[in-house]
Amino acid sequence: MSQATDPPLTELRYNVKRLPFADVTEEDVRHFQNIIPGRVITDESDLRPHNVDWLRTVKGHSKVLLKPRTTQEVVKILKYCNERCLAVTPQGGNTGLVGGSVPVFDEIIVSTALMDRVIKFDEISGALVCQAGCILESLNEYLEERGYIMPLDLGAKGSCHIGGNLATNAGGLRLLRYGPLRGTVLGLEAVLPDGSVMNCLNSLRKDNTGYDLKQLFIGSEGTLGIITALSIMCPRKPRAVNVAFLGCEYFSQVLQIFTMCRDQLGEILSACEFMDAESMRMVQMHLNLINPLPDNAFYVLVETSGSYGKHDEAKLNRFLENAVDSGLVTSGTVGTDQTKIMGIWALRERITEALALDGYVYKYDLSMPVEKLYALVEETRVLLGAYAKSVVGYGHLGDGNLHLNITAKSHSNSLQSLLEPFVYDWTAKHNGSISAEHGLGFKKRDHIYYSKSMGAVHLMQQIKRMLDPKGIMNPYKTIPPMD
Amino acid sequence: MSQATDPPLTELRYNVKRLPFADVTEEDVRHFQNIIPGRVITDESDLRPHNVDWLRTVKGHSKVLLKPRTTQEVVKILKYCNERCLAVTPQGGNTGLVGGSVPVFDEIIVSTALMDRVIKFDEISGALVCQAGCILESLNEYLEERGYIMPLDLGAKGSCHIGGNLATNAGGLRLLRYGPLRGTVLGLEAVLPDGSVMNCLNSLRKDNTGYDLKQLFIGSEGTLGIITALSIMCPRKPRAVNVAFLGCEYFSQVLQIFTMCRDQLGEILSACEFMDAESMRMVQMHLNLINPLPDNAFYVLVETSGSYGKHDEAKLNRFLENAVDSGLVTSGTVGTDQTKIMGIWALRERITEALALDGYVYKYDLSMPVEKLYALVEETRVLLGAYAKSVVGYGHLGDGNLHLNITAKSHSNSLQSLLEPFVYDWTAKHNGSISAEHGLGFKKRDHIYYSKSMGAVHLMQQIKRMLDPKGIMNPYKTIPPMD
Repeated sequence: MSQATDPPLTELRYNVKRLPFADVTEEDVRHFQNIIPGRVITDESDLRPHNVDWLRTVKGHSKVLLKPRTTQEVVKILKYCNERCLAVTPQGGNTGLVGGSVPVFDEIIVSTALMDRVIKFDEISGALVCQAGCILESLNEYLEERGYIMPLDLGAKGSCHIGGNLATNAGGLRLLRYGPLRGTVLGLEAVLPDGSVMNCLNSLRKDNTGYDLKQLFIGSEGTLGIITALSIMCPRKPRAVNVAFLGCEYFSQVLQIFTMCRDQLGEILSACEFMDAESMRMVQMHLNLINPLPDNAFYVLVETSGSYGKHDEAKLNRFLENAVDSGLVTSGTVGTDQTKIMGIWALRERITEALALDGYVYKYDLSMPVEKLYALVEETRVLLGAYAKSVVGYGHLGDGNLHLNITAKSHSNSLQSLLEPFVYDWTAKHNGSISAEHGLGFKKRDHIYYSKSMGAVHLMQQIKRMLDPKGIMNPYKTIPPMD
Repeated sequence: MSQATDPPLTELRYNVKRLPFADVTEEDVRHFQNIIPGRVITDESDLRPHNVDWLRTVKGHSKVLLKPRTTQEVVKILKYCNERCLAVTPQGGNTGLVGGSVPVFDEIIVSTALMDRVIKFDEISGALVCQAGCILESLNEYLEERGYIMPLDLGAKGSCHIGGNLATNAGGLRLLRYGPLRGTVLGLEAVLPDGSVMNCLNSLRKDNTGYDLKQLFIGSEGTLGIITALSIMCPRKPRAVNVAFLGCEYFSQVLQIFTMCRDQLGEILSACEFMDAESMRMVQMHLNLINPLPDNAFYVLVETSGSYGKHDEAKLNRFLENAVDSGLVTSGTVGTDQTKIMGIWALRERITEALALDGYVYKYDLSMPVEKLYALVEETRVLLGAYAKSVVGYGHLGDGNLHLNITAKSHSNSLQSLLEPFVYDWTAKHNGSISAEHGLGFKKRDHIYYSKSMGAVHLMQQIKRMLDPKGIMNPYKTIPPMD
């Protein structure tokens, strides 16, 4: 996924002040060079891509990037930083969308880029053990050669790190079928801020010996420590994959298609995504992708994955016949070969990329009861009128997850004040989550109260203080400070 | 599941001393009667079944049982107990196997028996919200009427409470298909020891707003608070269910059958259980169940659940043909109607019950690499010789989970000292867990170090102290005390 280079970066006006961490000195840099010789980056131009997020909306000013290769090196780094009270931002593939993976001020960046080793893979159980810096797509390729796949998949797979996926509790395209990471991650190793290692790196499907500590680190966005290795349960590679791409007129039909495909495809349904016409306009205009079903108001992508092609095709054909007969679908196409399947998936997966080329993007990643999903897009469109370049809605139907995106020529406070708190109020009113899968990061930290009670946030603050008393780990992110 | 009445209870020699909690006074009882009039039980014979665990191996001496109906009543109870420093044991269906759900000394029992209300069910998403005291089987029946099922199932379903299932992170028979509770539980409400309510009771499939606090309570065995309500994702009821019951000669064949059925049944495989000949002897002898395939050394139960019967039967038949052709299977039978399916399942599900009728049971619930599962049973058999009445091995193949059970006329320290630390050492040597799904409870608390590092246990102790500074919640259980 190529990074947007146009429009230029718009630095947000930060609403936080630098906390009194120590400044990085030359002596510190020399110390790091002793720990990881040749892997301490201080050159400003080398640092630049690590100081700016993928969306080019948050920019930090770190002067040091560290590239450990082993857990023991991370131990030494964090122990030193904690003693010296130096702030640290862990960074994986830097593909996050909420400013969680870049420094806000001069935090030291600890990158997992060189921690990219597969430790072992058990071909009987499907348990994969690897370092945190492995790239998701590389792991999937490694597994495919052995008859397995990763239980998660997302647009950024070509550059995101599996450790970052865990740290942000990434959802993505396969969640409908294989469930969330909280169920598929078997074990985890993390280095705590004081340099101690939390080793829960087992590969057992079941283990009820005490509290499940690894869950604290899944979704903690680097605020409690650095995930260094993990063990994950991988499903068998399906023998047959089919994709149907359907067009329809109304969102109510999208919902009916979803219910129908879930009932009729049952256990072979592996994804059910929707896109609106504006989403399709973006990928056509900015990436020259071809829409095989032009002039529909809504599109649904249905994927099946199964162990026996003939049965899957029979189920899919029966579903498609029913969908057409009942008048739900205006037009449709089916992909059974790899090229066509990838072509259809690109229409959905590359929307983020296309949006970044359209202008400054206001991104909202919301979950709510599925029947409410599109009403918010429509209301936002009416509310903004000509203020927005484009208002785009798409997402994961099966998970009740809407990606609402608004583009404009550049960032403007007046547009932002139209959007917020409107979008958050609307979501909270419908008992939704203001961050379904992206996390809170830097940009959404203070909006946590729309989805979590004061008591719950207070408990999170206590956990943060317990594990990171000096607050050095990814400061200014995810958990608001205690009063 | 009827409770064993014979042999008589053998009280373990407890290796713990009563901690300096306050004694329950008459004034305390009056206070509780004000909070929940008519639902304060102090009669000794009424208390008896709540003071003794299902296996009749642990016996407490509680003098008060409280039966709240609402979260607010639990709030008042815990707030008062915490202020007074009165110890509390939460109790669901009291079907636990590690002494976690009964008091050790005079802890006040807070039962969820009257908190049995379904709060709501969303027929589009399949999200069920209910109180913690709902019985698992009742919930499943409620859901079946609406075209859904619970994502978990276990032998004790007729009496266990869903809150207890969460508190112990129950695994069971459907884990292979629907994954662990950590992935299917959507939301949770718990009352903390100080009486504050942790309300994370949403019904969203995705919610990445801060740390996932509910995970702390799943598997905490009542040591951090009382789970009062929950929200859980329920799968569609499969249209077709088939069960095959197979006999074979060697455990190596059991493993090959497992690999073959996983590959050939793929997405419709919903359970893969194994039993040895001794397991079958138990259910035949004590429960008069009929074994349709006598004289095999091993048995495998394979269940499929799918959306289209014809396809499932074709897949199952193809698998059975291959299994017979390759000489793996000596004999087999298939159940497609409800009566026969239930008959086959009873052979597996009622083993626990049969064992309890055989004598004093030493129970081990272990997970390890699947290929090692049966070697431990064989070694144990050799080690014990005539000391044991019976050495039985069965379990969940798909999850690498062995239930190793040893029966004897009565409890004896010499037999126990043959078994422990032998079983735990063996398990730890093979990187297994000494409690796969039963939890640690009272009986296995101090064995936690076989499966968890000192550092990990220390972190658990810190969490316990943070949430329960006075240590009133289910003391003597799960987490060893800090030094």
